Amino acid sequence: MSTGVTLSSAPPRGMRDMLPEETALRDWATAQLVATYQRFGFARIETPALENIANLRGGEGGENLKLIFEVLKRGDKLDKALADRTVERDELADLGLRFDLTVPLVRFYAANQANLPNPFKAIQIGSVWRAESPQQGRYRQFTQCDIDTFGIKSEVVEMELIQATSEALMALDFRDFNVRLNDRRILIALAEHCGVPAGAFDNVFIQIDKLDKIGLSGVRQELLSNGHATKVVELLLSFLEGATTSKKSAKGFEASLPPNAPEEVVNALRNVLKAIEKVADGRYSICFDPTLVRGMGYYTGQIFEISAKGSAHSIAGGGRYDKMVGKMTGRDVPACGFSIGFERIISILAERSVQAPGVGERIALLFDAERDPLDEVMVQAKNLRKEHIVSLQPKKKEMRKQLDALMNGGYAAYSVFKPGQSGLEIKKLEQSS
Amino acid sequence: MSTGVTLSSAPPRGMRDMLPEETALRDWATAQLVATYQRFGFARIETPALENIANLRGGEGGENLKLIFEVLKRGDKLDKALADRTVERDELADLGLRFDLTVPLVRFYAANQANLPNPFKAIQIGSVWRAESPQQGRYRQFTQCDIDTFGIKSEVVEMELIQATSEALMALDFRDFNVRLNDRRILIALAEHCGVPAGAFDNVFIQIDKLDKIGLSGVRQELLSNGHATKVVELLLSFLEGATTSKKSAKGFEASLPPNAPEEVVNALRNVLKAIEKVADGRYSICFDPTLVRGMGYYTGQIFEISAKGSAHSIAGGGRYDKMVGKMTGRDVPACGFSIGFERIISILAERSVQAPGVGERIALLFDAERDPLDEVMVQAKNLRKEHIVSLQPKKKEMRKQLDALMNGGYAAYSVFKPGQSGLEIKKLEQSS
Repeated sequence: MSTGVTLSSAPPRGMRDMLPEETALRDWATAQLVATYQRFGFARIETPALENIANLRGGEGGENLKLIFEVLKRGDKLDKALADRTVERDELADLGLRFDLTVPLVRFYAANQANLPNPFKAIQIGSVWRAESPQQGRYRQFTQCDIDTFGIKSEVVEMELIQATSEALMALDFRDFNVRLNDRRILIALAEHCGVPAGAFDNVFIQIDKLDKIGLSGVRQELLSNGHATKVVELLLSFLEGATTSKKSAKGFEASLPPNAPEEVVNALRNVLKAIEKVADGRYSICFDPTLVRGMGYYTGQIFEISAKGSAHSIAGGGRYDKMVGKMTGRDVPACGFSIGFERIISILAERSVQAPGVGERIALLFDAERDPLDEVMVQAKNLRKEHIVSLQPKKKEMRKQLDALMNGGYAAYSVFKPGQSGLEIKKLEQSS
Repeated sequence: MSTGVTLSSAPPRGMRDMLPEETALRDWATAQLVATYQRFGFARIETPALENIANLRGGEGGENLKLIFEVLKRGDKLDKALADRTVERDELADLGLRFDLTVPLVRFYAANQANLPNPFKAIQIGSVWRAESPQQGRYRQFTQCDIDTFGIKSEVVEMELIQATSEALMALDFRDFNVRLNDRRILIALAEHCGVPAGAFDNVFIQIDKLDKIGLSGVRQELLSNGHATKVVELLLSFLEGATTSKKSAKGFEASLPPNAPEEVVNALRNVLKAIEKVADGRYSICFDPTLVRGMGYYTGQIFEISAKGSAHSIAGGGRYDKMVGKMTGRDVPACGFSIGFERIISILAERSVQAPGVGERIALLFDAERDPLDEVMVQAKNLRKEHIVSLQPKKKEMRKQLDALMNGGYAAYSVFKPGQSGLEIKKLEQSS
């Protein structure tokens, strides 16, 4: 390394190293999720971490578009960009790190459609990157875990996604969680019914989305200060008030609907509520929630979120986005996805002190690095390895200290190599007194 | 998406989408490798994909330093860099994508040493990025699979790494491969013995490294045209000639050594040859190869490579690098690693038509999306899923065509939902005649 350069051993700001114990927990959780999804016929795919910058900037990523890590052009292209002294920052990059798994999935489907089954059911588990100001619990590289189905219009897809995601959460020992269900078209009907002008729908939805945090009076204030007419606001509020108190299961959820809700939308909601209530069989719950909004602009139909018991934060979210493939290929394809908040799941598991099941009993084989015949040491280790996890370690002078270190390092037992012996004695590690 | 923007559905140049079948093969191979390494006491860790750019540029990455994907600064920092009209390209980036897993591992070890066991034995499987001109089989994002041991000086580490990597390859059905072994200090002794001037060692090693490809006469020519003295070249050549024809196993490898080879280096080589011959037990072979060089400048001791049977390309490579941690922390730590060429392994497996073992029998449950009660469909699917992988699909008008598509999509059987029935008949899918 060049002299005078001070290297930092810290990972980049907002990013993390994963030590063996955390990696084991993440690997175990990943395996549980994948195994569950596979039973529903989903299969894992992968896309590159980088996408052409135009694809990322051109998407409907909302706030995420401001958070893209952009990759500098290389070679002649960069020379050319820099030689132009009026260079704009937009012209310096040609690639960017993906900020979610949905934009890449739609590109993947457009590129590979001819070689994919129909319906296409994908599992994606991978890193995404966002240049957020690092806050507690928010990282600049984090894992997302999505399932998506392309090619089926029927709400059976919503049912399957909700059921599969719920079963996946149960495989990670989550219990008694609640699925909240709504439909973008219900929100639109509500806005129309209350007299919101066409261009102001999104702004109204953004305020409704805050209901959990700021309550009814807070939403009223926000709506008014955003310039919505008092009459409109009062109509909206009376609806929201009714919605938060009325019955929300398959029987009776209609009381929470705006009167102009389209019949086929209501029927599909009823079907999903009914089917999930049946397959959940009391192990988790589902309710209709007309105040559920979800941030992304690309949703076209049902939307859903799962909250863990006793937590306001959602641990999974998704919905239908039937128009996104069409924007890339010119031909719409029905699409629906559900994403588990992998990092939140892992922190909850860690808080609960959940540990990944071990891979077997670990044994240290101690030997004298100066004197022992190493080929014999290796043969003995090979024999032990048939039944145990075996790690070779040179004997240290202070045996007791070394044994304590082994025990703290998760070893269950040790053995000391003795030349010429056919079998080795395995001794349990016990805390020195 | 903005009007007029043409989005490309292709992944970025030199990068790939992984379809379900290839992903399944990669996941299976990964699981085999990890399970094997775990038996040797290695544990998986992860580092971020991005590193501070100074750490990447400051390393001993050789040619790879020219191939870094650099990430543009953001916000005020970028404004500041661009406002300066004499901006250098080096000042535009603050982060870069890792080009290997060794530089991040050394940083990881330096940062987390206090919380890691000693010895520390790491498995890393992850993507790395290099902006190479895309050629056949060379990708700009590819997977590396490394094991490394920190904290033990004894050559038992080399033995364990070679044995673990060989067992991992056998778990992927590689047979009869050959491990080639050398030591950087043998190369240095050879150069000294032949009278190569101190500053010209690396150039000589680079030419020797080409022996496989251009033969003895080619190496002679290269050495001469690189300005080495005829006398030096002839001495080197006579040694190389002897080395390529002499016996190379534990018994007799000394004939291939330069006369000034240090005794402890020779003893360690003998120990490794002897131990691996024993544990290999005829299933694979090991030989001393004094012409083995390996590209990276950071190696300080033994180096090794594995070639698949009938292939000139290596499928794994590694060596000892005892000085790299010290360059970051000021205190040297013994370190040794072995890396499997994951992409090469996967292409060889794909060429051999190896497929990942299936996850179970896949069954399609067909239903009428307009008329069937979807809650009953879901309950039936749930029952079937106790024993099968079940995917729901709306019935299509042309049943025969749909069944053929299911069979081509890897389904083993199907069932047609009938309302009110308690059990469903499962029918095997058979090719229509």
